[in-house]
Amino acid sequence: MSKTIHIGRVTIGGGNPVAIQSMTNTKTSDITTTSAQIAALEKAGCEMVRLSAPDENSARAFKALKSKTNIPLIADVHFDYKLAVLAIENGADKIRINPGNIGDDVKVKAVVDAAKAARIPIRVGVNGGSLEKEILFKYGNSAEGLTASAINNVRRLEKMGFDDIVVSIKSSSVKKTIDANRKLAEAVEYPIHIGVTEAGTYENALVKSSAALAPLLLEGIGDTIRVSISGDPVREIFAAKKILNLIGLRKFGVEIIACPTCARTDIDVEKLANDIEMALIDFEKPLTVAVMGCAVNGPGEAKEADIGVAGGNGEGLIFVHGEKVLKVRETDLLETLIQYIRENF
Amino acid sequence: MSKTIHIGRVTIGGGNPVAIQSMTNTKTSDITTTSAQIAALEKAGCEMVRLSAPDENSARAFKALKSKTNIPLIADVHFDYKLAVLAIENGADKIRINPGNIGDDVKVKAVVDAAKAARIPIRVGVNGGSLEKEILFKYGNSAEGLTASAINNVRRLEKMGFDDIVVSIKSSSVKKTIDANRKLAEAVEYPIHIGVTEAGTYENALVKSSAALAPLLLEGIGDTIRVSISGDPVREIFAAKKILNLIGLRKFGVEIIACPTCARTDIDVEKLANDIEMALIDFEKPLTVAVMGCAVNGPGEAKEADIGVAGGNGEGLIFVHGEKVLKVRETDLLETLIQYIRENF
Repeated sequence: MSKTIHIGRVTIGGGNPVAIQSMTNTKTSDITTTSAQIAALEKAGCEMVRLSAPDENSARAFKALKSKTNIPLIADVHFDYKLAVLAIENGADKIRINPGNIGDDVKVKAVVDAAKAARIPIRVGVNGGSLEKEILFKYGNSAEGLTASAINNVRRLEKMGFDDIVVSIKSSSVKKTIDANRKLAEAVEYPIHIGVTEAGTYENALVKSSAALAPLLLEGIGDTIRVSISGDPVREIFAAKKILNLIGLRKFGVEIIACPTCARTDIDVEKLANDIEMALIDFEKPLTVAVMGCAVNGPGEAKEADIGVAGGNGEGLIFVHGEKVLKVRETDLLETLIQYIRENF
Repeated sequence: MSKTIHIGRVTIGGGNPVAIQSMTNTKTSDITTTSAQIAALEKAGCEMVRLSAPDENSARAFKALKSKTNIPLIADVHFDYKLAVLAIENGADKIRINPGNIGDDVKVKAVVDAAKAARIPIRVGVNGGSLEKEILFKYGNSAEGLTASAINNVRRLEKMGFDDIVVSIKSSSVKKTIDANRKLAEAVEYPIHIGVTEAGTYENALVKSSAALAPLLLEGIGDTIRVSISGDPVREIFAAKKILNLIGLRKFGVEIIACPTCARTDIDVEKLANDIEMALIDFEKPLTVAVMGCAVNGPGEAKEADIGVAGGNGEGLIFVHGEKVLKVRETDLLETLIQYIRENF
């Protein structure tokens, strides 16, 4: 089990639930717009937000932004250690750097000392696009190279007497993401932030992130996740919740399971599943609802769902853990189901 | 490496590319409608199609359906061994049964003998909803139970002198799917068909299937896949291609990688990525295109892409494997990129 690390009021590692994070894509120095995006992210279920600090105004903006939100804010800084120090002085709850592009030990130490004084963690964030020359020479841009770079940079911080560390290795390759993080988890005890970088547009990002993060998370690797998607970051939160929900690691509201339909199907399973999903969008308790196209096999096949419906030939069945509880007309199925759920769950 | 099995003109196992399959959801006995759906699936890239044969007319329909398509047709039969035999007599290229619900050895042997005579394989398809009582009693509906049931039923066929076998274990749980198939792959040498059952509506199915199939496929487990999605099965093919493409196992046309955008981003990465995806939808050669929001880091971070664009401050860069090849006005970026790709790749 990984070490416990505190990021503002959020604790990751040590068996805590996998925390969901995202990153703003507004100008960090534009307080109004950025605060609005942070608020939208928080409302969607985001548990911490990263903001890039590419200039002094952005680093200073943390002060104002912090006063307008309850969730931890993380400063993402490249190249210039002074911006990292400035963001820390302005209240950042965590700093993400890639020590490899910050420079020599004097510069990295300045960031470490500021983080130590502010008692905030540093994420050592390595990715395929910015590997050190020695690493590239020895390993190429491989899972081994990514892991070696991450471990080297963790050891640099440890040598400076710092162990309030989160680590990440990102790649746009699913296989490298899985392989590198498995190696990393063997080598360090710090919490690991996982995600696929440059995952692309919505559906591609959903596929790549599910493909890479699910196996790691199911092996216990990964203490916080970011699902990178081009565009509005709020969708990253819904995608992250969907992944955690569907692999059974966290529970957020309703999960619909639906049979894929076949020649035996007499009802419009897809429409019914979508209608149920929409009708229960505000339902916050964890609940699995099965939508089955076949009254004969449906209840048995969906025994593990909390509640389910099966339909065909004008009739609808509602069943709870595989046991029939109601028989209704097919046309009343949706309404009766929703009412039953709201009354009984 | 798994044994090689022939399903019509498609060969799976033995290191062949992972074959994509789907299942019709029309009435199999309705030849016109079913043929049209098979044709749509084939056009989308489906390599074999499964059809349910719940009655005599459906089993007999294989004859007419086979005459109208080039891809192998698989008959899915439950409970009634006579329907399996009838589908085989009518030209099915493979039979999927769950021997556990076909009945005693006399009945299973009738199917085996018919398959042997027709020289077609049988898929032993086990799923969580139809485990034998003894298995449920001993293991519950667990990964162990699913694997034990699959192996038992494979051994039954082997004892009847039959080894032209494909095996599958399906569950609606991502974790059980992964665990059970890993165990299965250790125990048998037959090709494995993998998929998540009752995966649900489009996005959920995409997440669950990616999460369960990617780790297995990357470990070399899985010789043919079905991505179950409620609704039009053609989407199952696009989803399957997307998964295989994005984990690097097969290549179908253009893969867009796009940076997730941050405060440094000056161009609309999401729109540009979507525009490129649409403009190249007919481009069949494997090609990776990176869309980066930052002219400074973009080319370096996207070195592994075949070609990429980065933009900001009115200017656009086109780079090939990280090397700048063209600088254009941002407004000309899309058009120039597409032209460059069509001329050079």
